[in-house]
Amino acid sequence: MSARLDRQIAFLVEADKLKGILRRTPLADGTRLENSAEHSWHLALAAMVLAEYAPPAVDVARVLELVVVHDLVEIDAGDTFAYDPEHALTKAERERTAADRIFGVLPGEQGARVRALWDEFEEHSTPESRFANALDRFQALLLNYRSGGGSWTVHGVRRSQVLARMAPVQATLPDVWPYVLDIIDRATADGLIGEG
Amino acid sequence: MSARLDRQIAFLVEADKLKGILRRTPLADGTRLENSAEHSWHLALAAMVLAEYAPPAVDVARVLELVVVHDLVEIDAGDTFAYDPEHALTKAERERTAADRIFGVLPGEQGARVRALWDEFEEHSTPESRFANALDRFQALLLNYRSGGGSWTVHGVRRSQVLARMAPVQATLPDVWPYVLDIIDRATADGLIGEG
Repeated sequence: MSARLDRQIAFLVEADKLKGILRRTPLADGTRLENSAEHSWHLALAAMVLAEYAPPAVDVARVLELVVVHDLVEIDAGDTFAYDPEHALTKAERERTAADRIFGVLPGEQGARVRALWDEFEEHSTPESRFANALDRFQALLLNYRSGGGSWTVHGVRRSQVLARMAPVQATLPDVWPYVLDIIDRATADGLIGEG
Repeated sequence: MSARLDRQIAFLVEADKLKGILRRTPLADGTRLENSAEHSWHLALAAMVLAEYAPPAVDVARVLELVVVHDLVEIDAGDTFAYDPEHALTKAERERTAADRIFGVLPGEQGARVRALWDEFEEHSTPESRFANALDRFQALLLNYRSGGGSWTVHGVRRSQVLARMAPVQATLPDVWPYVLDIIDRATADGLIGEG
């Protein structure tokens, strides 16, 4: 049996743990919290369906790769809640340590390639990673709204916080932005998001 | 607000239901059954990691698209258990009806494009769809084995049935096949799969 294949399969088994990492965002039907594996799948589908709104010449194939791997570090580092500034302070360090271990399960040069995808997503340094990040923000908004408030109501999130969180959508998906503003307006009117 | 974007977002909200469709296969840690959304994500990751074993010139980008959409019809048709021949008889008809409705939520020409990906996966007609199908079989084997038997023990599945089910791996991923045989041997020796 090949040692290389052994490491690749060990990585796929390790990655299975992402299905047990819960986010703060519920499913659209509100029945339970979403996990980071099914969230990653939903972003991949969103990238395919909303590709026409992406910046010009975005390579959708690489966007799919970015979203598939973007949350793997949460297996060790956990999901960091978007509206928790204190936890966010330690996020980068916790996630780098996690990346070293998790991508290190793969054969060396392959681990480095997958790690580079994760770095690219984190750094928002390319049109592909900016599109992927904008989808990440938009998908959470959609699920919070459809589920009747989700993490907004649980944590008392305010309109100005949501607007700041959605800035990547405004910047990268301008044609989707009116839809986002409409959801924020409705959610504020319905009391799902606090005024101010 | 654009009617086209409305339909695309309605599709993404509809697709969210795939997170509630349970398969017969448990997670690797055996704590619960896997759902079809997180399963689809795991296949996408497997396609990236095991791409070097795919048939020559396989377009991995299209493989990712195939696995992302391959189970969406289960939102209406449910998951059909691999070792249930009676249920399998009605599978094609149930899934076609589901595909008409679900891909029909998208704007016409986009729905047709996504539907064509699903058709391609189902028909095993291209190297990409054969690779995607082989991964689908292999991932279930891996989770059944790692979880201590999974759907094999619950349903009394026999070695000859598993070998038949894994034939696409033998045909399409010959370099991975010794690994599959090794798992089947161990699982049989451990009594997770019945003899014969």
